[in-house]
Amino acid sequence: MGAVKTKRMPRAVREQQMLDAAVRIFGQRGYMAASMDEIAEVAGVSKPLVYLYLNSKEDLFTACIRREAAALTEAVQSGVRPGLDADRQLWDGLRAFFTHTAQHPDAWSVLHLQARTHGERFAAEVTAMREEIVAFVTRLIGAAAREARPQDPDRPEPGSSTPDRLGLDRPAVDPDLPEREVAGLAEALVGAAESLAAWANSTEGVSARQAAATLMNFAWAGLGNLMEGRPWSPTDPDHQGRAG
Amino acid sequence: MGAVKTKRMPRAVREQQMLDAAVRIFGQRGYMAASMDEIAEVAGVSKPLVYLYLNSKEDLFTACIRREAAALTEAVQSGVRPGLDADRQLWDGLRAFFTHTAQHPDAWSVLHLQARTHGERFAAEVTAMREEIVAFVTRLIGAAAREARPQDPDRPEPGSSTPDRLGLDRPAVDPDLPEREVAGLAEALVGAAESLAAWANSTEGVSARQAAATLMNFAWAGLGNLMEGRPWSPTDPDHQGRAG
Repeated sequence: MGAVKTKRMPRAVREQQMLDAAVRIFGQRGYMAASMDEIAEVAGVSKPLVYLYLNSKEDLFTACIRREAAALTEAVQSGVRPGLDADRQLWDGLRAFFTHTAQHPDAWSVLHLQARTHGERFAAEVTAMREEIVAFVTRLIGAAAREARPQDPDRPEPGSSTPDRLGLDRPAVDPDLPEREVAGLAEALVGAAESLAAWANSTEGVSARQAAATLMNFAWAGLGNLMEGRPWSPTDPDHQGRAG
Repeated sequence: MGAVKTKRMPRAVREQQMLDAAVRIFGQRGYMAASMDEIAEVAGVSKPLVYLYLNSKEDLFTACIRREAAALTEAVQSGVRPGLDADRQLWDGLRAFFTHTAQHPDAWSVLHLQARTHGERFAAEVTAMREEIVAFVTRLIGAAAREARPQDPDRPEPGSSTPDRLGLDRPAVDPDLPEREVAGLAEALVGAAESLAAWANSTEGVSARQAAATLMNFAWAGLGNLMEGRPWSPTDPDHQGRAG
């Protein structure tokens, strides 16, 4: 990413160099403080060429968000091999996610922080990526739930409802976890991953693998119990519990 | 919050009315689209009075963030009664959090969305609140871990290190979970809660109690296993697992 100047470099290559430089500067300086001068300098091109190709600071930033969102989504999806056990798929997906965010901290700063902090137009770009990842995780958890109890004769009828151990009148836990519960779990997992990635990147000495292991430990045993019909329940919801 | 006009109302009361109106309009319209005219109208005061008391749209928005951040932090902390079992404390804290965000959806939109989308100055206000909540959850998880195995004779020396089941050379799981692991778990839990609250508020028919139960189920059995030294481990990390 030095100031390499080659004449007749194809436009597509030049554009990628500009985006490389822009992600780095936006990620490190923040959207407001980033200057087009510095981006052009880091990209090794003239500032007018940046404007010619990418039009404006806003459009350049949008192009950065789109490219990095696509790269992250691709990294996670291609890190997961279909056909493995659900927990293994989740572990692979988490490692791919944390490896990518650790290796591209400027890109993660653009997606997680900068894009959400500077106006609804940019935030909407990230929301689209997030929805794609949530949908992916939702399918993964749904498949895991079906895998957990494929042949349970006591499986309740879909849509049946019983008060559960938390005293909620909600659909009984069945091998196909209620759709809404699966959606909520996927939201929780994605939110946890986002939060942990930001923390890992700003905490000295936390590796991608450690961050993935922390979340896997946190998530899987909980999900695993839930899928097998063992939700957590308070010791004594109406009184003060064991230590009261 | 109607257009009540009482002469000689104390300034503090008027200011709270302005903030009530501002949170509602900022939360529903978004920061950019919110107009000071509408805020004054909803508050039942003149626009010059809003400027006199709160100075500018930016300062008014900052005052909203601070008030709502303090209210949410207070709701969570006062929802948790010290002395109960750790899981019960977590359950109470989660219910308090989701009840508050469900009852104050405009305030949650201001904190979670608007404040993070319109510049670093506002985002920093929310970051301060988030750090306080993470610190609170960190203490809770730390206490839970100590409670889980108070008298384990096999407790490793603090600081000792063994390769764990994920093949990581990291501190052995001990009753006082490694400090960094606890910090990571707290980040994961807070991120999950933020994500779920946004989802619950935008999904028809998801109650605060259901959202809290989803996260409790997700989190506790996982945390519980972890604290008792039963992390998740892949079936066969070097090969393809059972279903390969």
